[in-house]
Amino acid sequence: MPRQTYLIGLIGAGVGPSLSPALHEREADHLGLRYLYRLIDIDVLERPATAVGDLVRAARDLGFDGLNITHPCKQHVIAHLDALSPQAAELGAVNTVVFEDGRAIGHNTDVTGFAAAFTRGLPDAAKEQVVLLGAGGAGAAVAHALLTLGTGRLTVVDAVPERAAALADSLNLHFGEKRAHFEPADTLAAHVAEADGIVHATPTGMAAHPGLPLPEELLHPGLWVADIVYRPLETALIRAARARGCAVLHGGGMVVFQAVDAFRIFTGREPDADRMLAHFTEITDQETALRTAYGA
Amino acid sequence: MPRQTYLIGLIGAGVGPSLSPALHEREADHLGLRYLYRLIDIDVLERPATAVGDLVRAARDLGFDGLNITHPCKQHVIAHLDALSPQAAELGAVNTVVFEDGRAIGHNTDVTGFAAAFTRGLPDAAKEQVVLLGAGGAGAAVAHALLTLGTGRLTVVDAVPERAAALADSLNLHFGEKRAHFEPADTLAAHVAEADGIVHATPTGMAAHPGLPLPEELLHPGLWVADIVYRPLETALIRAARARGCAVLHGGGMVVFQAVDAFRIFTGREPDADRMLAHFTEITDQETALRTAYGA
Repeated sequence: MPRQTYLIGLIGAGVGPSLSPALHEREADHLGLRYLYRLIDIDVLERPATAVGDLVRAARDLGFDGLNITHPCKQHVIAHLDALSPQAAELGAVNTVVFEDGRAIGHNTDVTGFAAAFTRGLPDAAKEQVVLLGAGGAGAAVAHALLTLGTGRLTVVDAVPERAAALADSLNLHFGEKRAHFEPADTLAAHVAEADGIVHATPTGMAAHPGLPLPEELLHPGLWVADIVYRPLETALIRAARARGCAVLHGGGMVVFQAVDAFRIFTGREPDADRMLAHFTEITDQETALRTAYGA
Repeated sequence: MPRQTYLIGLIGAGVGPSLSPALHEREADHLGLRYLYRLIDIDVLERPATAVGDLVRAARDLGFDGLNITHPCKQHVIAHLDALSPQAAELGAVNTVVFEDGRAIGHNTDVTGFAAAFTRGLPDAAKEQVVLLGAGGAGAAVAHALLTLGTGRLTVVDAVPERAAALADSLNLHFGEKRAHFEPADTLAAHVAEADGIVHATPTGMAAHPGLPLPEELLHPGLWVADIVYRPLETALIRAARARGCAVLHGGGMVVFQAVDAFRIFTGREPDADRMLAHFTEITDQETALRTAYGA
């Protein structure tokens, strides 16, 4: 009896450093599956984000079982799919496509992945009032997860107010009036002072965008702080929040749990989330050691 | 250190029953390579043979490392490649494409595969005069292999005389005048009587085309008989030839050695040909047992 085989790809821009191949393939090895995860980089291919439809069709024709989709293709891909999961439809973004009997079905495991990571990493956190920094794609996924988990009032802040307003409008449409509202950045202090926790979903804190996304003095004990950035895991925000006594959640959990959920969708098999978390930590520790060794 | 990974496909019509995925993947497992071999069936995709160019480009873009190409695409693919091996260029047919730094290089391991199978299976066979039955794609590959191995005079016979004539002309162009000539089917007896051996390269003897490709009484002791048909391995021709005292070579060797050569081209690693042969025998024995059990 030949073992089951899986061919998965990741379509997006600049996906070269993705940890997904390692995470998926190692877990598949543990489960005895033949599993190959390929990176399909539209920058390398010199194709626009709108080429994602052609790439999805080609992947289906060439025998791929599924795809992850990342920036800047998560919205563009929707027009080329046959069906959407409720989370993907509500969010208007797809990060996981599975081919079933020739049909392409879109899912969003950023939403379920953040929810799983949050529930696991901050199990006792109050979440009635939460401030979300960043209304881009990651912010939108986090917002959907939080409102699904029961957050009563989500304050959305973004450097581009129109973007925060649009996200809040869309959230209220799906989750009920006044669950979400947007606020200008200069009122942040008052909102953080009242909040149970904050989620940071902008690029600040990545190697290319060092620094803190908000004034350090706003971080008060009793606040929990979740960061979406995961390279590095120890962002300036996570360090500052921990120093001020906040419970913290780094960005690695969302990465791992979106992969856990995608793996389950692709294979119908239950991956070992603890094992994938441990593997993720091992890889990122190696990366950190390398960066340190080379002074990068 | 992550192990090396390989994604390979087979493009052709009706490739569903191909043994290549099993042969390649099992050998890769022995060598510790992550290796996935996918079937890309233009019948299933409802695409014409001329679509092979688009499929090759898509495979390169989606991260395939190489492709096998089979009927009816072996000629059509050539216009879409960046370079050809000498065998493939001479034969005008490609069954193996490897992607190297974004370039698509065409090879023909049907030629090298038959040569290797013949050398191994009939090591002491005289091959000065050989009769080839069938001037299609497989026959052409066999002819190139035999003339490369040193056959002095190759007689080509085909139910379509123009096809035999065209192959003989092409062979003489590449290998020198009068190495090959075509003969009408009704002179077969005289040519077989003088020959050292015959190679059969038509579909006769396959389950859908039962029977013998030539009158049994032409098979004389001292003649060697090679069949290209490998489903079943024991064709009526092989049985009749063995019964008359001929040395015989069944079609399995060419299947295995074309795979051996393709595997080496794809990976740069030396596969274990004995192990692949043993695996092939195991699979085909299982198929035979299944056919017998179901009376098919």
